[in-house]
Amino acid sequence: MKIYLAGPDVFLPDAVETGRRKQEICARHRLIGLYPLDNAVDLSAGDASLRIFRGNEAMMNGADAIIANLTPFRGASADAGTVYELGYMAGRGKLCLGYCNDPMLYADRVRKFTEVTSRGSRLVDTDGLTVEDFGLPDNLMMIHALELRGYPLVTPRQAPADLWHDLTAFEVCVRKAAERLPPPPASS
Amino acid sequence: MKIYLAGPDVFLPDAVETGRRKQEICARHRLIGLYPLDNAVDLSAGDASLRIFRGNEAMMNGADAIIANLTPFRGASADAGTVYELGYMAGRGKLCLGYCNDPMLYADRVRKFTEVTSRGSRLVDTDGLTVEDFGLPDNLMMIHALELRGYPLVTPRQAPADLWHDLTAFEVCVRKAAERLPPPPASS
Repeated sequence: MKIYLAGPDVFLPDAVETGRRKQEICARHRLIGLYPLDNAVDLSAGDASLRIFRGNEAMMNGADAIIANLTPFRGASADAGTVYELGYMAGRGKLCLGYCNDPMLYADRVRKFTEVTSRGSRLVDTDGLTVEDFGLPDNLMMIHALELRGYPLVTPRQAPADLWHDLTAFEVCVRKAAERLPPPPASS
Repeated sequence: MKIYLAGPDVFLPDAVETGRRKQEICARHRLIGLYPLDNAVDLSAGDASLRIFRGNEAMMNGADAIIANLTPFRGASADAGTVYELGYMAGRGKLCLGYCNDPMLYADRVRKFTEVTSRGSRLVDTDGLTVEDFGLPDNLMMIHALELRGYPLVTPRQAPADLWHDLTAFEVCVRKAAERLPPPPASS
């Protein structure tokens, strides 16, 4: 089973090494991890971003499943590129798994960035825009997509010390994906 | 042609009215706008968020196209739910259009929220995470998906006074979608 490894991991200072660690975990569970940075793209090319897009899309089309790192990225929600990819894979009918190293609920996360108040039955931010308050860790579209198309979002009970490098929740996803594999051939 | 009207418009204080305005613009161009809030969901139900998900997904499955409002939402990127839906529709092979009422480039948007510095050939935020710097208004996955699966992201030259209610860029998307329609029957 080939798994597309989506996440803002590609933005880490040790992005390549992080991908390698994820692929090793996949391999230990008899899965093949496809990591976006394995597509060699010349970043100095004028159309580098388009080449990255095409590489990622081809990788997703060749994968059976996605494991999306939905840890909040520059705000209360997951990284937009990762969310796009989760939607794309759900649209293609692929197996969808995801994890988030921040176990906070969405409304509480928003409170870290702006004041949230009650207006009637709604929670609103300082712009008067509704703050989703369904007791979920992020926008309901992603959360229920995972629940219905693969496995519910995996979150730790407590945020790990290193939000970007702790792969415990990731490995839970890998294990859940591996459960879909046929049993290994008998060794004797 | 049925168009799914995705966007954080559903979080506005006048969410229903905004949807109605969008649907009127669609109708003027012989298109049918499908707006998430047209799914009647009892918000006091224990599984309200799941019902919303199922309603939105059914609406997307019944639509020929999506027009996504990708105006930045609580941060430098578009609303996560909208981005998921754009990915989903791209994955299903539907026509994809989108607009963003903030014409700023992504790297400049990030600068509004955190310090951005150069590290070698990369721009990085205060956490050391790479800031995408391809001269695009948001994450490359969404931008190129629109370009290749429908019509390039529509942005105004200058942000309108009312970022959430100005529908000029939205109407450009509607017009572009309408160009795909067969010509209307001759009236005489």
